[in-house]
Amino acid sequence: MASKPIIGISMGDPAGIGPEVIIKAFLHEDVQALADCVVVGDPRIMRQAAGFVGASVKVNGIKTIDAADFSAGTINVYDLGNADPDKFRIGEVSEYCGKAAYDAVEQVIRLALDGKIQATVTAPINKAAIKLAGCPFAGHTEIYANLTGTKSYAMMLAHHDFRVIHVSTHVSLMEACRRVKKDRVAEVIRLADESLKQLGIENPRIAVSGLNPHAGEGGLFGREELEEIIPAIEQAKTEGIDASGPFPPDTIFSMAKGGLYDIVVVMYHDQGHIPLKLVGFVYDREKQAWKDVEGVNITVGLPIIRVSVDHGTAFDQAGKGTASESSLVNAINYAARLGGLA
Amino acid sequence: MASKPIIGISMGDPAGIGPEVIIKAFLHEDVQALADCVVVGDPRIMRQAAGFVGASVKVNGIKTIDAADFSAGTINVYDLGNADPDKFRIGEVSEYCGKAAYDAVEQVIRLALDGKIQATVTAPINKAAIKLAGCPFAGHTEIYANLTGTKSYAMMLAHHDFRVIHVSTHVSLMEACRRVKKDRVAEVIRLADESLKQLGIENPRIAVSGLNPHAGEGGLFGREELEEIIPAIEQAKTEGIDASGPFPPDTIFSMAKGGLYDIVVVMYHDQGHIPLKLVGFVYDREKQAWKDVEGVNITVGLPIIRVSVDHGTAFDQAGKGTASESSLVNAINYAARLGGLA
Repeated sequence: MASKPIIGISMGDPAGIGPEVIIKAFLHEDVQALADCVVVGDPRIMRQAAGFVGASVKVNGIKTIDAADFSAGTINVYDLGNADPDKFRIGEVSEYCGKAAYDAVEQVIRLALDGKIQATVTAPINKAAIKLAGCPFAGHTEIYANLTGTKSYAMMLAHHDFRVIHVSTHVSLMEACRRVKKDRVAEVIRLADESLKQLGIENPRIAVSGLNPHAGEGGLFGREELEEIIPAIEQAKTEGIDASGPFPPDTIFSMAKGGLYDIVVVMYHDQGHIPLKLVGFVYDREKQAWKDVEGVNITVGLPIIRVSVDHGTAFDQAGKGTASESSLVNAINYAARLGGLA
Repeated sequence: MASKPIIGISMGDPAGIGPEVIIKAFLHEDVQALADCVVVGDPRIMRQAAGFVGASVKVNGIKTIDAADFSAGTINVYDLGNADPDKFRIGEVSEYCGKAAYDAVEQVIRLALDGKIQATVTAPINKAAIKLAGCPFAGHTEIYANLTGTKSYAMMLAHHDFRVIHVSTHVSLMEACRRVKKDRVAEVIRLADESLKQLGIENPRIAVSGLNPHAGEGGLFGREELEEIIPAIEQAKTEGIDASGPFPPDTIFSMAKGGLYDIVVVMYHDQGHIPLKLVGFVYDREKQAWKDVEGVNITVGLPIIRVSVDHGTAFDQAGKGTASESSLVNAINYAARLGGLA
């Protein structure tokens, strides 16, 4: 068996739930069995988060990865010395926390590019806060693409083995329709195939969704299937990829969730986000509150591995120690699989 | 307590699973307790279907609703004498079956308009078959709208108390974006409010979804929320309707499924169909086959009540007696609630 991969976890916004869900995830025995984790951020924040959770862990501040101590119960924190608990308030957007969060992301990327860690996992940042701090990027995905010089990438969401990968993400739905072009669809099918192989799936079964209701019903409601999507699937097949479709968007997800396919290539943000979040985000009827948030977000096509939680900073829950660590546990699990096999 | 409503069930395509799922649904005690059912079609087909299922029911052919015998174990069939089992093959598209199916729909509508029955439920028809038979309509919804002279209507899908209602349905996604207009959105919010009140919900809580990712994030990815959807919600509020939104399309369905809202107003076919079918259509991992199909489809805005199963004729399963009756049981349940309270 290969040795455990070292996973760098960027701490996220110090005022959000990131630090405390990292502590909670670290306490899972299977997480420690899967990977050697190093948090990139500030040990003071991680000690405070351990307090919120009521956990007795040893927080070990380090300045190089080589200095890490991976014995049980010790959580290593690559010390950026940039987040003083006395300088901000939990649960609030601030330039100070935005900067600390951005710096942690930049550093975790650098450690991965330098080969010091085998994979990266990101805890949530706040878009408004990083903007206040002068970061010109919309979010993690754009930061990663830019700092690694990547042009061809896509967002994958996964809930265990139920997965989707997006042709486009943060554009209007009208613009998303325009972006359904053969070359991009073929590129995303290829990215899906490569990343699933990286996850250890030998012959990935890739379903491609249509754009229009009933996948256009032979051109009756839209022609993108005939003119762009089918040619892209044919192209992928000539490359030896097991791609099929286009499938009606309203039934393909039940089939993928039922195990018939390893991934669905989706044409726009909500076509993939609606089914994945419906499965992964569970709202409790009795308590009228979120019960669990489980999915993960993987940026594929990068030269390094990046997996993220599929939720935000949840400022209203921060500091209570109650936020669910499920999504982060799953993210570490995915990162370990990708990092261990790469 | 009000007396049980009489529900007319159009038999659907004789070559599909309609007749046999009607027999299976009828065998549920709660179905017979909720409503007095009359199938509109051909008793010969219903006897054959009882054979497929292995059920011992008495099939009572009638020429008027008054002649029905609602004693336990007797299934009444309003006899159109138009489907001879020797004249077609189970599981095949044919003009003969298309015509029989269409005639049953026309008759069930007429019985409802005449006040002979309190609600209608439709078993699945086949689009290609009704087209062969010369029917100029795309499906049930259009037939109902035309024969009842209805201009303002919308499609609701429901899985128990998880419901969506559509601003548009069978048009391309590009055209659906164009149809997100204040007047239509306000009309659909109003139709949602009225139909939920008809279902016995005193103060319906209506969530309105956005069109774009993150509901446009303040105009960053599309302006339909600002220019059309928000004004429609404001309009609805001035009419005393409890409408809120626009919500990000990728999280609102978890909240509605968790009981926070009675319905979600959705902007296009798949925005509503993806979450409802993901919940209602269950694909069995072990058996690699459909396990259950549970949702119902309600046409709201009509002068009569119409509820439908949320699946097709499933020709590949017809004649085996194995198709699931869950969706039809739910459809009868919804129709009984609507018919009993109207």
